[in-house]
Amino acid sequence: MMMKQITEYIDTHGDRFLEELFQLIRIPSISAFADRKGDMIKAAESLKTSLLAAGADRAEVMQTSGLPVVFGEKKVDSGLPTVLVYGHYDVQPAEPLDQWKSPPFEPEIREGKIYARGADDDKGQLFMHVKAFELMNRTGSLACNVKFMIEGEEEIGSPSLKEFCKNHKDLLRADVILISDTTMIAQDTPSITVGLRGLSYLEVEVTGPNRDLHSGLYGGAVGNPANILAKMIASLTDENNRITIQGFYDDVREVSPEERSEMARAPFNLEAYKKALDIDEVTGEKGYTTPERTGIRPSLDVNGIWSGYTGEGAKTVMPSKAHAKISMRLVPDQDSKKVDELFIRHFKNIAPPGVKVEVKSLHGGQGYVTPIDFPAYRAAEKAIEKSFGKKPIPVRSGGSIPIVSDFEEVLGIKSILMGFGLDSDAIHSPNENYPLFNFFKGIETIPLFYRYFAEEMKNI
Amino acid sequence: MMMKQITEYIDTHGDRFLEELFQLIRIPSISAFADRKGDMIKAAESLKTSLLAAGADRAEVMQTSGLPVVFGEKKVDSGLPTVLVYGHYDVQPAEPLDQWKSPPFEPEIREGKIYARGADDDKGQLFMHVKAFELMNRTGSLACNVKFMIEGEEEIGSPSLKEFCKNHKDLLRADVILISDTTMIAQDTPSITVGLRGLSYLEVEVTGPNRDLHSGLYGGAVGNPANILAKMIASLTDENNRITIQGFYDDVREVSPEERSEMARAPFNLEAYKKALDIDEVTGEKGYTTPERTGIRPSLDVNGIWSGYTGEGAKTVMPSKAHAKISMRLVPDQDSKKVDELFIRHFKNIAPPGVKVEVKSLHGGQGYVTPIDFPAYRAAEKAIEKSFGKKPIPVRSGGSIPIVSDFEEVLGIKSILMGFGLDSDAIHSPNENYPLFNFFKGIETIPLFYRYFAEEMKNI
Repeated sequence: MMMKQITEYIDTHGDRFLEELFQLIRIPSISAFADRKGDMIKAAESLKTSLLAAGADRAEVMQTSGLPVVFGEKKVDSGLPTVLVYGHYDVQPAEPLDQWKSPPFEPEIREGKIYARGADDDKGQLFMHVKAFELMNRTGSLACNVKFMIEGEEEIGSPSLKEFCKNHKDLLRADVILISDTTMIAQDTPSITVGLRGLSYLEVEVTGPNRDLHSGLYGGAVGNPANILAKMIASLTDENNRITIQGFYDDVREVSPEERSEMARAPFNLEAYKKALDIDEVTGEKGYTTPERTGIRPSLDVNGIWSGYTGEGAKTVMPSKAHAKISMRLVPDQDSKKVDELFIRHFKNIAPPGVKVEVKSLHGGQGYVTPIDFPAYRAAEKAIEKSFGKKPIPVRSGGSIPIVSDFEEVLGIKSILMGFGLDSDAIHSPNENYPLFNFFKGIETIPLFYRYFAEEMKNI
Repeated sequence: MMMKQITEYIDTHGDRFLEELFQLIRIPSISAFADRKGDMIKAAESLKTSLLAAGADRAEVMQTSGLPVVFGEKKVDSGLPTVLVYGHYDVQPAEPLDQWKSPPFEPEIREGKIYARGADDDKGQLFMHVKAFELMNRTGSLACNVKFMIEGEEEIGSPSLKEFCKNHKDLLRADVILISDTTMIAQDTPSITVGLRGLSYLEVEVTGPNRDLHSGLYGGAVGNPANILAKMIASLTDENNRITIQGFYDDVREVSPEERSEMARAPFNLEAYKKALDIDEVTGEKGYTTPERTGIRPSLDVNGIWSGYTGEGAKTVMPSKAHAKISMRLVPDQDSKKVDELFIRHFKNIAPPGVKVEVKSLHGGQGYVTPIDFPAYRAAEKAIEKSFGKKPIPVRSGGSIPIVSDFEEVLGIKSILMGFGLDSDAIHSPNENYPLFNFFKGIETIPLFYRYFAEEMKNI
């Protein structure tokens, strides 16, 4: 398949692609709102129809223990490799509504960008795959077998998807999972996300005296849980900003000097970074650069802390309780459940006499890293280099997509995160947007990926 | 004056004393509520009338820059010493109202206690002085000249009283200030408060990045103000629970071994103390007992702390700001303003790069200590020993009454804190109460104080 064939098809059908995407966006499929169930079904049915229209042999809306999954497939030849496309049709709530310049579920194009909830995350990025699939079918250039698995619960933590995968392992059999739900550095600096951090998120409660006390009458004689919590949190990291929890680093996969220098190719302007955040200095684990500190190293953050009197003025109270939400970002091969246990044991161990400590795990997920020397990575790299004219940079993101490690665990299939979003797309925020350039460049890149992936798989 | 004469007068007139006190209590003179101004005036006028009826030569409601002060006096003989009685006619708000067993401004006697807002603090304790004054006048036994200064702003921090004292130094000339606004250990364990701690109360704000950040994308690379605030607070005290602020202990008056052993006579049951608070261990400055830690040593407490997400569940936010309210209790001769400055300088010094720190002083006051070898103390000791049958124990309270040090500074007069309240009186709380035993025992003790004070003053 020639590049010309691809761009010609996009030129001819681009307006229709957009109109079809807009129809999908207009369905307010907000998974967090139980009363949107009807819209969730509508969005799923709409995608089923789109897949069939694009050339799928079969497509169906499949039940799960939660919201349904849209499954579709097209078998070309059992000798060809199979690509499983993952995406999600649910979106974040649009609140606060008054901060949108145009209504969130009425897509509008301004200055070359589609403005709407889901314009990028993930309806826009997902729909590139549906339309690239159509393009390959119509031009007779489909180089792989294709499957689609499109869920409706990503924005609420994919509670049903792992079980769905367990129940349909044969149906989902594939050589790679292709996902466009991440960003690249810039339109002229393409990149591929090769790492995601895992997460352990816990809440702690420190209890001292059985009631709030007068800080004059008791101050200095009774352990103050707010002071004690501060000391306990302070002790969780040392002077080099390393985490002191016993055993925490045992499973951290060290990154080779070669991969670190490959990562260092990604443009990063420390002065611009500091200026954007209005800070005079960055801080983090000694011995690592800022991108490395979020990309390949774990971290520990207080996400919230509260105790005692927080209103106006002075109240001389010694609080009975102090609370904090504390989370850790994890790297391969740290196990979220194991880290939860290490944290709980450590935090209880360091509690001084005079207080009681409760810790509960709120949320978690495994980290993930894509090898940069496997066929799907090489295929994505070649495809992007061809369409963008530049070799993409492998980037580790500090964020987490827990389901990716579940795919590997349950299905035994690696994922490739070929995302076309930008940091400026304001996903999860008012005025979410997706540049038309990225939408069409994605549709152009995806067929190239299929072609190169088929070639790579032939060679191994 | 014989003891018999006192008790006979109380027996005869006790019911009327109570009825008069109840009339004063029924006026809801809550200084914190601006719309109670009329009740404040009413309470002040009522006390003026009571003083005149009790035998004052003069009594008046005097204007200040805030709520008025009731002044009264009786000159007996210019050769006799003068006692200036201080008290306050304002009370705390009664909220939460639904927790009172009887209405707060309708006094009710149950099981030998008066239940009402102000029953102890300070209408009950103040009124003992008005009635003891009447008793001494009617029985021709007034052994000193007497002045009364009764303010209406104690519960809101006495904002106008210092200036009032400056403006009326001659009028307020006296040999001692007699105050009943504190507690004793128990009905069978009388005590005299000889020390009050001072207070420095500040609020700190630590600002990191200019907006809340995603803790996955930035965690580990940007200083988190909540973690940093925890470290800064943790560093304010060392492993011996000593305060690390530079210069903090410079002015702390060390207490002599003799006075410490005198203090140690006060009964204190550590097991009962821990049990009442439901804690398995007390903590505090190394080398001091629990009563010493609140009585003669300074302390530092977080009164409130807040930052980031404090709602239900997990939100992966790195907060932009973190706040805390931090107060220190001070001992003689620490200066509250100087400690504020030491704190502010120290706290800004320990801020690491990457954050900005703001500190503001919210509230403060000097500590105070009564010598136990001056005439008023000896007089109070003898009076209580005679009426209660036991020598009172000198006790240092952890709390603060900032106006007492102002009296010494402005008027050059020492105060004696001869309080008859009990810890169980629930002042500032619902169901405030004052035992009839304490009310009448106070009226019995006060004339003895006057007699012994006149004798002590003759001897010096």
